[in-house]
Amino acid sequence: MSDSTHYDLVIIGSGSGNSLVTPELESGRTAVVDRGVGSTDAFGGTCLNVGCIPTKMFVYAADVARTVVDAGRFGVDATLDGVRWRDIRDRVFGRIDPISEGGRDYRVEADHTEAYLGHARFVGDRELEVEITQPGGHHEVGSVQRITGDQVVIATGSRPRIPQPVLDSGVPFHTSDSIMRIEELPGSIVVVGGGVIAAEFAHVFSALGVRVTVVTRTERLLRVMDQEISQAFTDLARGRWHLHTGARPTAVRRGGEGVELDLADGTTVSGELLLVATGRVPNSEDLGLEAAGVRVHGDGRIEVDEHGRTTAPGVWTLGDVSSEYQLKHVANQEARVVAHNLTHPGDLRSFDHRYVPSAVFSDPQLAMVGLTEDQARAKGYEVTAKTQRYGDVAYGWAMEDSTGLFKVVADRRTGHLLGAHVMGPHASSLIQPVIQALSLGGPTGPLTAAQLARGQYWIHPALAEVLENALLGLEVAPHHDVTADYDPEGAADA
Amino acid sequence: MSDSTHYDLVIIGSGSGNSLVTPELESGRTAVVDRGVGSTDAFGGTCLNVGCIPTKMFVYAADVARTVVDAGRFGVDATLDGVRWRDIRDRVFGRIDPISEGGRDYRVEADHTEAYLGHARFVGDRELEVEITQPGGHHEVGSVQRITGDQVVIATGSRPRIPQPVLDSGVPFHTSDSIMRIEELPGSIVVVGGGVIAAEFAHVFSALGVRVTVVTRTERLLRVMDQEISQAFTDLARGRWHLHTGARPTAVRRGGEGVELDLADGTTVSGELLLVATGRVPNSEDLGLEAAGVRVHGDGRIEVDEHGRTTAPGVWTLGDVSSEYQLKHVANQEARVVAHNLTHPGDLRSFDHRYVPSAVFSDPQLAMVGLTEDQARAKGYEVTAKTQRYGDVAYGWAMEDSTGLFKVVADRRTGHLLGAHVMGPHASSLIQPVIQALSLGGPTGPLTAAQLARGQYWIHPALAEVLENALLGLEVAPHHDVTADYDPEGAADA
Repeated sequence: MSDSTHYDLVIIGSGSGNSLVTPELESGRTAVVDRGVGSTDAFGGTCLNVGCIPTKMFVYAADVARTVVDAGRFGVDATLDGVRWRDIRDRVFGRIDPISEGGRDYRVEADHTEAYLGHARFVGDRELEVEITQPGGHHEVGSVQRITGDQVVIATGSRPRIPQPVLDSGVPFHTSDSIMRIEELPGSIVVVGGGVIAAEFAHVFSALGVRVTVVTRTERLLRVMDQEISQAFTDLARGRWHLHTGARPTAVRRGGEGVELDLADGTTVSGELLLVATGRVPNSEDLGLEAAGVRVHGDGRIEVDEHGRTTAPGVWTLGDVSSEYQLKHVANQEARVVAHNLTHPGDLRSFDHRYVPSAVFSDPQLAMVGLTEDQARAKGYEVTAKTQRYGDVAYGWAMEDSTGLFKVVADRRTGHLLGAHVMGPHASSLIQPVIQALSLGGPTGPLTAAQLARGQYWIHPALAEVLENALLGLEVAPHHDVTADYDPEGAADA
Repeated sequence: MSDSTHYDLVIIGSGSGNSLVTPELESGRTAVVDRGVGSTDAFGGTCLNVGCIPTKMFVYAADVARTVVDAGRFGVDATLDGVRWRDIRDRVFGRIDPISEGGRDYRVEADHTEAYLGHARFVGDRELEVEITQPGGHHEVGSVQRITGDQVVIATGSRPRIPQPVLDSGVPFHTSDSIMRIEELPGSIVVVGGGVIAAEFAHVFSALGVRVTVVTRTERLLRVMDQEISQAFTDLARGRWHLHTGARPTAVRRGGEGVELDLADGTTVSGELLLVATGRVPNSEDLGLEAAGVRVHGDGRIEVDEHGRTTAPGVWTLGDVSSEYQLKHVANQEARVVAHNLTHPGDLRSFDHRYVPSAVFSDPQLAMVGLTEDQARAKGYEVTAKTQRYGDVAYGWAMEDSTGLFKVVADRRTGHLLGAHVMGPHASSLIQPVIQALSLGGPTGPLTAAQLARGQYWIHPALAEVLENALLGLEVAPHHDVTADYDPEGAADA
């Protein structure tokens, strides 16, 4: 045990936490502690190494494969000759791994920060012991370093949740931490879970030619989405994957093609590989939070106020370990707020969780922001909703789209938008004007759907017209329609 | 010659003009006159029959073919076995032609409108003779019908401009009116022109396997776009097509593979087909406008005021025949304004030409809105501009994009946006948040780039982040940065 080293700031976690070291903070002494992601040594957190970024790179390759298989519909005859899994994998990680390594080396070498590559545990108020678990830093592996900070930020993120029966069974399984690094494509895979991660990997493997079985306890996939969209996605998924909804696994064992699951309805499903995608849990254990006076919710999230403060003075938190949103763009926003607050104690900023969008990069892609139709009703709004088919706008014709939906939800009395829920190509970008309208409004405050539709041009025939037409299709109480030239007839403009 | 028939409203042109017949106007008697598009009888105008809509359907098939050819980059091995041109063509027009025919039949059969399928010519104030040229209506082909209207709307659109030397040469040639209906793909095509139509068809035919030669007098393709984007597109085009810029044809003749052009630099180019794409001229001749007191600009556009009024009382105009913008979304907006003004003489609305976006569905796709960098400088702004590479945001990594650019132009003193210029996938939809920001602003008036970037979430890692990062990359005078949490560091968030 070395003597204690004191820092102005100690950051635990090198994901969004790593971006805290703004120029304003560079004048002080900062320690960044990281023990790697999942079972790897990777520096830089979930998004970069095992989350958003690599998954989307696999998804895009899967999208290309789907386009090839689907090309005949457009009069373009094409053959999918094969998929080079290792080339895809090595291209993805050949780009990502050097960034992760470069990020670590930068933190190790930088003058104003010190990197501790290991596991941190509070032993008192803003006092930590770090067990060094990785080479590459200035501290010997196996040594325990004691550090203190005027301020400490806990940004340790989250990790895949593994159901106890899977752990107990002793069967080999993958999570999002490991599945992207496998050596070769399996012939079949069983995905357990019905959320975002399950939907994305089911698409990736299915499009790359793997037989995919999805097993989920819920009746619908992506059940956090608007019910209509969630149901439509589930219906499509039944045509693409072997989908078992409302399914309860009763046994997991080696067998069949590799792993076998018995379901409560008597079915047995089997795959060469098992991917567990049943949600993520905050990395709040083993941090000695009790010793620091940092309280934790029952679900494992660290208690946090709107400014990023934990229950312990001088200890802050952000991102998956404490946020209600396990989303990188939220963690980034929280990191910006905390970065400001660390240096402006008399002028604290707040997290902005008003209109948090999210997307699912499956097939089709999905995106959402604001209230679902059910949520809006539950809040007492007189709800009006319109679901516009991609296939009924000009660019949807060009795409021969028959499944895309852009749903908007609004307050019938005022015409103000409440939310949007999209399933279809480019959903994650097409939804941006709604995010913008909800977040920034317009010159007179919140925008009505009519103002949003008619107060700007929509390039004809760009795909964005699907949103324009959804907005124009809303039935709004006429006496509250304050837009000068609201013109529902225009919705049919060709 | 029949006796004169009187209408409350006479509309000449069934494109955007056709959408004028709003419920408010249905109580009166309306005549709709149309002589077809180009050399065809098609009802419904340019966009539907020979413009935006069918071209984008061909472009999308071309995009699919390009994706197949390009798939290997993503570890997906694919072969382009062939392209079924007639199937593409028949799919496109199998969808469009019935809409066009249905639109005509509806106008012919409707109680409150009367269709005149022929050519209209003013013979006096709001008095016209229509020579019936098409069957399908209630008037005999060859007859001349005299009609009058309390109000008349001229919405006759535009047609391809054919250079006199091409006409004089007597060689067979195509325009956008005819090229989409050819019987089979040629082995090679010469495209004359360097604008939007040339860029779109060059992409279509090139991607479908045709050897494409593009000949244009200008030094850059798409020269109405921001110079940097126009130059980047031209550079890419040189790698894809046989591109002759700054080229002056000195002779056009049958020969070579079909048609041969001599260029002033001594080169001769040849192709099986010749596509003339040298702009469009307003359809203002042969309308007897002098007899009606309707004045015309030197370039053939009908003179029009902001409310859609011509120089003749009771005679209105909209769309390509009078607008500075040959764009369907502008014509639609003008039609909505005129529809209102026809029934609200005491409460006239104005055309909104403040922030007119446009797109080019070529390869890559392009879009623009607002001022180019050069235009902004010419107007005296202290300009700041940022060109963000698609390839430097996460989704651009997934797409392996190496050419996409999102350029934003702003006022350095205030941080207010002035324009955006995009070349890359989905440009036509990705630009929408800029259109919205320029047109609708935010709660305190015009939005600064920083407010637009930081006042809303951008889904990570959606492609829309390319715009977020462009905005964050702008260098703005610090003392005018009024955004609370503007954080350029965040641009590098992964």
